[in-house]
Formats: sequence, structure tokens, C-alpha cells
Amino acid sequence: MTLAERYQTVRQHTADICSPLQTEDYVVQPVEFVSPPKWHLGHTTWFFETFILKPYFAEYREFNPEYNYVFNSYYESVGARVIRTDRGNLSRPTVIDIYSYRKYVDEAMYNFLCGKISKEIEELLILGFNHEEQHQELLLTDIKYILGHNPLFPAYNSNYKVPKVDGNAVTDFISMNEGIYEIGFTGESFCFDNELNRHKVYLNAYSISAQLVTNAEYLEFINAGGYHDFRHWHAEGWDWVNTNKVEAPMYWYNIDGKWHQYTFHGLEPLHLQQPVTHISYFEAYAYATWKGLRLPTEFEWEAASAKFNWGSRWEWTESSYLPYPGFAKAPGAIGEYNGKFMVNQKVLRGASEVTPPGHSRATYRNFFQTNLRWQFTGIRLAK
Amino acid sequence: MTLAERYQTVRQHTADICSPLQTEDYVVQPVEFVSPPKWHLGHTTWFFETFILKPYFAEYREFNPEYNYVFNSYYESVGARVIRTDRGNLSRPTVIDIYSYRKYVDEAMYNFLCGKISKEIEELLILGFNHEEQHQELLLTDIKYILGHNPLFPAYNSNYKVPKVDGNAVTDFISMNEGIYEIGFTGESFCFDNELNRHKVYLNAYSISAQLVTNAEYLEFINAGGYHDFRHWHAEGWDWVNTNKVEAPMYWYNIDGKWHQYTFHGLEPLHLQQPVTHISYFEAYAYATWKGLRLPTEFEWEAASAKFNWGSRWEWTESSYLPYPGFAKAPGAIGEYNGKFMVNQKVLRGASEVTPPGHSRATYRNFFQTNLRWQFTGIRLAK
Amino acid sequence: MTLAERYQTVRQHTADICSPLQTEDYVVQPVEFVSPPKWHLGHTTWFFETFILKPYFAEYREFNPEYNYVFNSYYESVGARVIRTDRGNLSRPTVIDIYSYRKYVDEAMYNFLCGKISKEIEELLILGFNHEEQHQELLLTDIKYILGHNPLFPAYNSNYKVPKVDGNAVTDFISMNEGIYEIGFTGESFCFDNELNRHKVYLNAYSISAQLVTNAEYLEFINAGGYHDFRHWHAEGWDWVNTNKVEAPMYWYNIDGKWHQYTFHGLEPLHLQQPVTHISYFEAYAYATWKGLRLPTEFEWEAASAKFNWGSRWEWTESSYLPYPGFAKAPGAIGEYNGKFMVNQKVLRGASEVTPPGHSRATYRNFFQTNLRWQFTGIRLAK
Amino acid sequence: MTLAERYQTVRQHTADICSPLQTEDYVVQPVEFVSPPKWHLGHTTWFFETFILKPYFAEYREFNPEYNYVFNSYYESVGARVIRTDRGNLSRPTVIDIYSYRKYVDEAMYNFLCGKISKEIEELLILGFNHEEQHQELLLTDIKYILGHNPLFPAYNSNYKVPKVDGNAVTDFISMNEGIYEIGFTGESFCFDNELNRHKVYLNAYSISAQLVTNAEYLEFINAGGYHDFRHWHAEGWDWVNTNKVEAPMYWYNIDGKWHQYTFHGLEPLHLQQPVTHISYFEAYAYATWKGLRLPTEFEWEAASAKFNWGSRWEWTESSYLPYPGFAKAPGAIGEYNGKFMVNQKVLRGASEVTPPGHSRATYRNFFQTNLRWQFTGIRLAK
Repeated sequence: MTLAERYQTVRQHTADICSPLQTEDYVVQPVEFVSPPKWHLGHTTWFFETFILKPYFAEYREFNPEYNYVFNSYYESVGARVIRTDRGNLSRPTVIDIYSYRKYVDEAMYNFLCGKISKEIEELLILGFNHEEQHQELLLTDIKYILGHNPLFPAYNSNYKVPKVDGNAVTDFISMNEGIYEIGFTGESFCFDNELNRHKVYLNAYSISAQLVTNAEYLEFINAGGYHDFRHWHAEGWDWVNTNKVEAPMYWYNIDGKWHQYTFHGLEPLHLQQPVTHISYFEAYAYATWKGLRLPTEFEWEAASAKFNWGSRWEWTESSYLPYPGFAKAPGAIGEYNGKFMVNQKVLRGASEVTPPGHSRATYRNFFQTNLRWQFTGIRLAK
Repeated sequence: MTLAERYQTVRQHTADICSPLQTEDYVVQPVEFVSPPKWHLGHTTWFFETFILKPYFAEYREFNPEYNYVFNSYYESVGARVIRTDRGNLSRPTVIDIYSYRKYVDEAMYNFLCGKISKEIEELLILGFNHEEQHQELLLTDIKYILGHNPLFPAYNSNYKVPKVDGNAVTDFISMNEGIYEIGFTGESFCFDNELNRHKVYLNAYSISAQLVTNAEYLEFINAGGYHDFRHWHAEGWDWVNTNKVEAPMYWYNIDGKWHQYTFHGLEPLHLQQPVTHISYFEAYAYATWKGLRLPTEFEWEAASAKFNWGSRWEWTESSYLPYPGFAKAPGAIGEYNGKFMVNQKVLRGASEVTPPGHSRATYRNFFQTNLRWQFTGIRLAK
Repeated sequence: MTLAERYQTVRQHTADICSPLQTEDYVVQPVEFVSPPKWHLGHTTWFFETFILKPYFAEYREFNPEYNYVFNSYYESVGARVIRTDRGNLSRPTVIDIYSYRKYVDEAMYNFLCGKISKEIEELLILGFNHEEQHQELLLTDIKYILGHNPLFPAYNSNYKVPKVDGNAVTDFISMNEGIYEIGFTGESFCFDNELNRHKVYLNAYSISAQLVTNAEYLEFINAGGYHDFRHWHAEGWDWVNTNKVEAPMYWYNIDGKWHQYTFHGLEPLHLQQPVTHISYFEAYAYATWKGLRLPTEFEWEAASAKFNWGSRWEWTESSYLPYPGFAKAPGAIGEYNGKFMVNQKVLRGASEVTPPGHSRATYRNFFQTNLRWQFTGIRLAK
Repeated sequence: MTLAERYQTVRQHTADICSPLQTEDYVVQPVEFVSPPKWHLGHTTWFFETFILKPYFAEYREFNPEYNYVFNSYYESVGARVIRTDRGNLSRPTVIDIYSYRKYVDEAMYNFLCGKISKEIEELLILGFNHEEQHQELLLTDIKYILGHNPLFPAYNSNYKVPKVDGNAVTDFISMNEGIYEIGFTGESFCFDNELNRHKVYLNAYSISAQLVTNAEYLEFINAGGYHDFRHWHAEGWDWVNTNKVEAPMYWYNIDGKWHQYTFHGLEPLHLQQPVTHISYFEAYAYATWKGLRLPTEFEWEAASAKFNWGSRWEWTESSYLPYPGFAKAPGAIGEYNGKFMVNQKVLRGASEVTPPGHSRATYRNFFQTNLRWQFTGIRLAK
């Protein structure tokens, strides 16, 4: 696939994700960490405009100088921006305006990609593709939040395909030997800066489960009073549970004594055999503690990752998000991509049902704050 | 005009106000006290459905039972409701859904109004017309907020007619004699419960200005450092100024040293001869104090109201919003209309450029908290 | 009594109020609106130092220049000050330091008062006496809060005399005729600026109760579910009840199904025949509404005040705290005494069991925000 | 030293720390994370009463059952407790009451320790000694906060000895080889559960500085605009700097252009050659980034700790506070000691000038949230 073809494919996939939406669904921001879909559409476009077209394509004329203010996410180097909580307060630019912006930038990119592309720019482009893929995942995550918190519980798309679930067998544990393991990305293809450097870690002997925890298993934790017993929780998690009156994973609703869950198909009875999802790190930790087990570290996960299936849920690890030995930020605005978030977050490994195909890999490191759960998170146990 | 004609006229006017909007403009709620235009469209429809059709029109079938939850504003008697701050988080029902709802209810109302209407129902209907007129004013007020706080400053409607301003003469004061005056509504036509009972008040001799304070006059206050001198302000107003770093009326922007204001036509140089607007009670009071004057009471205003022009600005008074002697709430949910707000608000008198024609009268009492200023408020002085 | 004698009497009474306290009781500020007793001791001293000694007594040398920063309450004209919420964070100056400060200032005042005192200074002095009397009342109010919110519920003083209660008779209503009444202070003796000017008001015919509402009567409101029925409450009051989970007056505790109240003697079974106290305006209003009655205005109260006993409770009125016709602030810092609080507060009339003898009068106007209830407030009904 | 002698020594040291205080200094809690000294005195006593005397000394009679409510810190297993922010709102029990409580418990402990002590109880006792030593450090830390935030800046104790500073030489870096290192406590004496199990880690080659960063060096960072350049900061740290308008370490005051610092001797000119202290993790990280270096991990620190002097500052590491392999909580309430805090905190290594002698060791792990800086923290660099 040429770079131009890949560009076109990635960009089209973003539009495809949005095609079932009503105009109104593009606009709202029901909570700070959710961005309006139209913002994602604009921001991913702004990324190519700002980091490729404006610096490297001499004949490019900016679409609208005010869009820099509207669609900058967090790049301090690129100037002032709409504060995050205000994204859902902006009715303009409209959805049509933003699709025009996409079209304008896509045409310019097409022209640009017909020319000769240096190695340096190719790397930026591939970063842009991966960036847009990350936003594709966020788009579906945010769309689920927007529709799943609407009192009418509208379906997103009745044709949405739920991935096949893990088998409903007894949990198997995979044994791993004590010793030195190599961790981090190696190879020629793309990786994020936070996957480097590849380095050695020493691991004690451990076991890791071959399957994810299911809804049925998690329900046992709920029924055993797990949300009401401080002993399973971190002190900060226990505060979180009580302040927010958390009683179940996000999107679970107990209607007349029967558990339901909101899915992309609308409100449905709980699917017991599916892997549990939309739980915070605090809940994942409490569940593991209640079972007398623990979460794996990200190193344990990576070292064993060839021995189990993964990819339907982002899996919480016990590891904090920290730089690997020799980690170095890229120069300029791109250097703000990962490093500045390396504090007070936990690493997730794997990929989820809404991750674009081919986007993740065994060394990929996702990361979120310990209280967040609108992502398609999951639990794999270790001991 | 028959009731059916009047119904049709009032309802059409609401739709006319919205006709210049983009779909996205109907959705957002940039601040708690602003409601999304689509919410106003739904709520005014819900009002007729809930208080007329459901109780009095046997053949009526509810459009959607969940809309009661979505479009109830504050009526505790009518069940649970979306919390106010969540109105802008709802992408559904869509704008099209809500126009369908309006059409459905309008047709039912048409059929209902073809039948015989009792005196009691006629009164409810007229309350519904006045209620919708109040929301027409709020619609324009909220639309201005939504567009005027967007970084692109889009115009609402370039054909919008600004009302003719007060002359730019020296301020004239009208002298009023000491004595007993009758205050409150009298007559056969409609009034709100808070305009009753008509009763006597004793007023000392006073003077009241024939003109509203202009932007030019208010600018003198700013230039004299009025926002930085505590002596002009209430203690609570002074906190408000400092906490919110208030430096000018809402919608005033100082661009490169030159004052501009956002209007329905977009961002424009400040119109010096227009009456100042979008100021809070705190600012109105501080301005009057700085001038060595004061705001009139609502009784002084009403007693003198035949002697000056009013209608382009809602005018802050010194009076707190309190019940008149003999005030009685209506029974049932309608009784929640006014009485429960009679604490910690100030009375405004008059009408504004966005008040529907014929909606206000000299005895009309509007009311807002002392810090709010997104209404088309104004200042008339007394001494 | 000479001015010097009166000075000495007033100052001694403040110290007497504090004599039962432990050192630690002088220090804490459990909630923003309560000040530590040692702050009251310092502030009332600072008042004489700042407004009498420093401007008018040439030989006076300031005790400690930093005390101006520590003991200024809210006078913007007199410079920066400790923010209100920080008063309880200051362990220094110690209680002993502050009593030294009092002694130092009292000696200077004694010397000053041996000289010739102009009329102007005499007025300031009398304002200072009244100011200190207001703080004597606040001292007892704040001490009750500090001890009554301690989990050990210590008594303040077992010798504290509870005033004789209103008789337990059926409530009598006093009828008053429609007409013009004169309101506001008249005479030669001291009054606050907010009691002026004396002016005419027109009152409709009304009745006002001769007795205050008792604990037994208020308990009926609680038992009838008064705190759980929105219809009795202002919208803002209903929010207050639900946000704060209010179920009873302040200092009422339901222990094993039996109501108790904290008094200056410690925790005791509820005294049913005593007038209810420590209720907010919201509660007073809700109680009156539930009874099918209302609160009197401050004008109704004053016009009838010769016909009933008052003085054990500060009585909530329906009136907002506003200036009388012709109200004028004093020049300079003293002008900050009353006027800047004339917004979003309700007037209370009468006096309470902790008001110093002779401090109040029928024209006296006290005022508080509608949600506060740590004062010895009460309810008198009207219709 | 017998257990009884050690008990007496530890307890006396706590009282010695408090001896320079005024009664008022024992009472206040100027910010949530600071506890009043009298609370520390009561809580350490409660610890022995609750975990030793009540379960193991049959003849012991509880001093006051309500003290459990007042002095429990965070042990959910031991019942309800005063919420943390209320500790400074309690004037009772008084300081004298609490010293009586200490005396009562100390006498009971003396009698108890005259009897035969099982191994299990000896372990609890030693935990109690270490617990009290931790509070001795907190006491000095909190006392500094209380006095150092008072506008009068009183000295704590003019006889307080400042530890000798690191030499003012050029910073030396110690080189460490790549390889496997053993981390964690080993031996017979006391350690906390979080220092276990001893386990292997693999470290890349690194260098670590032999000296701590000085005030003079940190001042260069300030003068270079370090607090105003987002590139040095984590995103969360940058928010913290801007929200709190942080410009310098805690206790630094710029007076007329000259830097001062509050010390136990009062306000003094900045000691340039002393190691910088009272900086948050965010600041330590930003400083290191500005220097082109980084903070060591806790493993790097421990592996090299024999090669440099430590003990005057708690040193921030890059490591998050996480359990070691094989970490197990103790059963019962003691199990709440460490494990439940292992999320969203950073590890500090070493000891500080206010750590009791003999309390720390090379494997000791302290931990705090990334924004806190009232501890005597410091910076050691790595590369």
C-alpha cells in the first residue's frame, strides 16, 4: 500500500465510524473526558494540517486560522486552545464545516503525497496514521458514552459486530519461569516512543491466566458484597467508590432486579459469558484482591503475551506508566505526545474490540488514570 | 383572534425565532443557566401536552412517555427530570424528533380547540401562551449566549432589527410626589399571579430618569476605574467582580484597545448611544452608587411608568422579589410557577428588545439572581 | 454612667463571656461563618485602636502593626487582612498575647477618656460600644457552635441561665388595622444607620401572633414530613434541604428515637415548651407555609411590636434587607458598617437570649443569609 | 535496652518535640494534610491502647470510649472516626486532657511490660515504636507548617540544630554497572511490610549524584524561568503550577527582591549552600528535566546507597509506590498500615533532618502524592 493509499484508508475509516450518527450526536460532551465526535474529526485533520502541510507543503493555504484554536488538543507549543471542558459548548464549526475541512485537507494531502516524501516526513505521516487510529478507538468509546448515557438509550448501529468471546472454560493459568526477559519494541516497523528502549527486566516466577474475567465471574464479586467491603480496595479506590456510589461496571443497569448492559445495539440483558468491561483500575484491583490473586505487571504481561489470546479488552496492569531506560522525547511539539503523561497513570496492555485492526502489538502501552472506565477495559489475573 | 388562531400564532413565532439556526446550535448548553434551543422547543410543547392534552383531551395519546423526563423543567409535582446541567448532554431526541413532537401536539391541540373550551381551560391556555412567550424571550437570550461565546462569533441573523434607541439627550428626571399609590394588576385580561393583589404603597417624593443609561455613560464608569473601587459595590458584588475578574458588561470585548460588542449581527464596534445592556444587578447598583444616585424600587418604577418610554431593556430595580399582600399560589403543579422563586432575587421591570410584542405591561414583574447578566438588562436611575 | 465607666463595663462583659472557656476553645473555627473567640477579643480591641486611638490620641503608640492584618474583619479601607477562612488556622497571637493587647488598649483608652471628648468622638465611642455588644452576642453564638459540634458535647457553663419561656397557651393573634405607619428610629439616643430614615409605610390589615412557635409545634411539622415535601419550600430552600440532608433544627439530635438538643448546659432532652431556635429562614418559611400562614414583614413586626413580648429569639421576617428611604452611609471606613451588606439577606427583628441587655430596640434591624441558623433565631407567624 | 526502656524513650521524645509549643499551637489544622500536634499526641497513644492494651492486657480499663472516635486515623476496621478535615475543629479534648491520657496509658503500658511479653506482642510493640517515630517526624513537619504559615512567623525553637550541610563542591556522579541487584530488607531486625520481599531487579548501567541539589542550584532553575516553561513539566505538574501559582519551594518568600526562607529559627535569608527542600515531586522532576538529567528509580537509589551520604532530606525517586513481589498484608487492622496506599504515590528514599535517629535504613520506603511538599524533601539526580 502506498502512503497515499494508506492515508486514504485511515481517513475513510474515521468517517465510516461516524456514518451511523445523527448531527446532534457529533456535538455533545457529557463529561470532561469525552470529546464530541465532531471535535475528533476536526482534531485529526488539524494534526495533518499542522504537522505536515503547514511546515512541509509550500503551496498549502491554511483552511481557517481560527481552527488552530478550536482543534488543538493539548500541544502547548502550538498556541492557545479551547479549554477541554468547553469542547461541547461549541456549535460552530458545524459538522458540515468540519467535513469540508477534512475534504480540503485530504485533497491537499493527496497532492502533497504525489510528490517526493522524505524519510523524516514519512515518519511523521505514520505517526499521523497511528494518531488517527487512536482517535478512531476514542471515537467509538466516546460515542458509546454519549448514547449510553442518554435516557433514551439509542442503539449506535444494529449491524455492529461484537467480537467472539473467550470460551467459558475454567480459568487456566500459564506458568512462567524466573529470569531475565527483554521488554520493549524491536524491529523496523512503527512503534511509539514509549515502547523504547528495549531493555532487560528480572522477573520472579509467576502465573498468568489464559482467559479474561467474565461478566459472570464479576457478578459473583458484586453479589458477595465486593463494593461494600473496604478490605479489597486501595484507600483512594474506597473513597472513589463511596463518593461516586459505584455499585457495578459502567453501563450496567439493574432494572427490576435483573442486570442489563448498554451495548452498541442498545440496552440488553447482561451477556454473562463475555469478558467484563468498563471497569476502573480500582475495580480491577479490588476484584483481584477479593479472589486472592493480583494483576500482572506490564512486564509479566508482555513476557507471556505469546501464550494467550488478547485483543478484545484493554487489560489493566499493576504497573505505573513510567519511561523505559533511555526513553527520550522527540524534539518539538511531537515530543508532547507521550512523555508528559508519565505520572499517576496505570499501563494497560493488549487492545480492545474498538481498536482498529493492526493498530496494537505486544509491546504497545496504553495508559489511563485509575478512576476512568469508559474505555473497553478488562481484567487478566496473575499470581 | 380565536384561541386556535392565537395558539397557532404563538407557536409559529417560536419556530420563526429558531429558523436561522444550524442544527448544532440547537444542542449545546455552554453554561448552566442557558438551555439548548431544542430543549425550549420540547419543553414548551410538553407544557401544553402535560397541562392541557393529558388531563383534558380524552382521545389524546401521549407522544412518548420518556419525554416527560426529558422536558420537565422544574415541576416537582410532575415527576423526575433530567438535571438542569445535563440538558446539553443529550443528543437525542434530535431536532427533527422534536419538531415532529411539536407537530403532533399542535395537531392534537388544533383538534382539541375545535371543541368547547371551559373558562378554566381557557385560563390554562392563556397561561400556556404567556409561558411560551417567556420562552421566546429566553430562546433569543440563550441563542445570543451560545453564538456570542463561540470563538468564531457567528451572526445570528443579519436581518435582525435593533430597536430604535433612546435619544442621546441629557438625562431628564421626572419628579413624583409623596403619597399613596396603587400597585399591581387590575383589569380583565391576563396577568401572572405575582402581579396580584393590587394594593396600596406609600412612597416618599422621588425623581426617576426618563432615559436609560447608555453605553457611553457606562464607559465613563469603566474608565473611572469603577470595577476596581470597592466603595461602589455591595460586599457580595465585590466578591463577584474579583472572583470572576469582571471588567465590563457581558459581550464587551476590548480588541487592541478598542471596545467591541457582540450583537445578533456578529462582533461590532461598541454602539455608544445605545442603552447599556447585559449588566448584573451588582453592576447596576455600583454604577448608580458611583453616580451618587440609586436604582428605583419596583413601586417607584410602576407609579411613574406612564411618564417614560420603556421596553428595550429589562430594568433592574432595588426591590427584592417578594409576594404582594394576599398573594396565593394556584393549586397543583401550576402553583410552582412563580411563588417558589420568591427569595434572593431582584425584580426587573419593563420589557426588552427580545420580549414578544404585547407580552409585558407596566405591572409585569420579571426577576433574576443578582449576578446574572445574560438577559437584556438595563439601568434607569432614581434619586 | 460616664463614658469611661461605660467603656469599662462593656469591655468587662466580653471577658466575662469568655471566662468559662479553655484555651483551646478560643482557637478553633469549625466553619467559615464562625470566628474563633480569640479573634473576637482581638477584633473588638482593634476597633477602638483603629478608629479612636490611632486617629485621635496623639500619644498613643500602636501595640503591634501586624495586628491590623490579623484583626481587621472586612474593612477594605483599612488595608489587607487575613482571609476569613484562615482565622482558625492562626495559633499566634496566643490568648495571653491578646489579653495583653486588650489590657494595653484599655489603659490607653482610660487615659484618653480622662481628657475632653468631642461630640464626634463620643459618637464613634458609642458605635464602638454597640459594635462590641454585637460581638458579645456573636461570641456566645460561636461558642455554642464550637462546643455543640464537638463529639464530646462539653457544657459551656452549668450556671448559664436560660431565659423564661413564653407561656404554653394557645397561640393568640393580634389584629392590626390597615393604614399608614411610621417606621424607623426616632429619638436622641444611639441607633444604627440602617434604622434611618424614619418614614411612612402603608400596611394592609393583618394579624400577628403574640407567641413564638415552640419546639413542640415545630416537632409536629417534622413528624408530618415537612422536610420531605417540596410544596412548603422555596426552590432554593428545597435544594438546601436536600444538599445538606437537613432533617431538624441545628443542635437537635435524635438518639435512639428520642429528640435531644445541645444547650449551654450540654446535651439534654428536647425542651418542648421552649421557643424553637436555630432554624434558617428557609425553615421558618416552610413551617409557616405548612401552617397555612406566613412570616410578618419587618414593618408589620415593628408596627405591632408594643403589643407582644420579644427578646428571646431573633425573629425571621419576610423582608429583604434593604435601605430605608434617605439612607446614607457614613463617610470613611465606618461607612462599611451596614450598607454594603444590603443584598440577598433577610431582616430579623427583636433580640435573642444572648443579646446584651439594652442592646436592641423595636427599630433594630438584624440580618442574615437565608441558609444560616447558628444564631438564636425564631418564628413568629402572621396572616 | 529493655522494651520498657525503649517504650519510655520513644514516648518521651514525642513530648520533647512538643515542649517549645504554646497551647494554641497544638490545636490548629491550617490545611487538610497537616494534623494538629495534639491529635498526634492522642493518636500515638490510642495506637498502643487499641492494639496492645485492649486486646492483651486483661486488667486495662479504657480511658475514654469516645477517644476511639477522636483519635483513629484511617483504620476502617476499628470503627467510625472524625473526618480528617475536622481534626482542627475540635477544641476538646484539651491539651491537658491528652497529656493525662498519655500518662494513663503510659502507666498501664509500664505495668503491662513488667509482665511476660510474647514474641507476637513484641512485634506489635516494635511496630508501635516505629509508628510513633513516624509521627515524631510528622509532628515537626506539621509544626513547621503551622508556624511557617502564620503571618507573625514565630520561631519554633531557637536552639533547634540544623544538620551539617553537604559540601559545596561540584556535583560528583557515581557510576554503577549494569546487572542484577538484590532489593529489599534482609536481616533480623525490624522492617515495614512494604520493604519485603527481598528480590532481584535488573538495572542498566547508570550514574547517580553523590550530593543533593542545593538552594543555589535550584535558584538557577527559578531564575532561568523554570516555573514558566511547560517543557520541563508533566502535564499534571504544569496544571498544578498554574492552578496554585507556584513560583518557588514552600517556605520561600521573596521580600523586596531578596529570597528568604522560613526555618525553625524563624524567617531568614536563603541559605544558598543547603540542600533544597520542600519541593514536590513535580518540581523535582522539572528541575531534573531542565538539567537534562533525571531522578533515580528507587532500585537505583538502594543499589548505590552505600556510596553516598544520605539522611538530611527525603529524596524523590522516579518509582511509583508499588508492592514488591510476594508482598502480603498483615491480618487484621495492622494490615491497613501500608498496602492500601500503594497507588498514585511516589517513593521517597533516605531520611530527613527531622527523622528520629535510627528510624530509617537503606531499604526504607517513604511515599507521598506528587503534589505534596510540606515534608523535608530533596533532589538527587541520575543519568
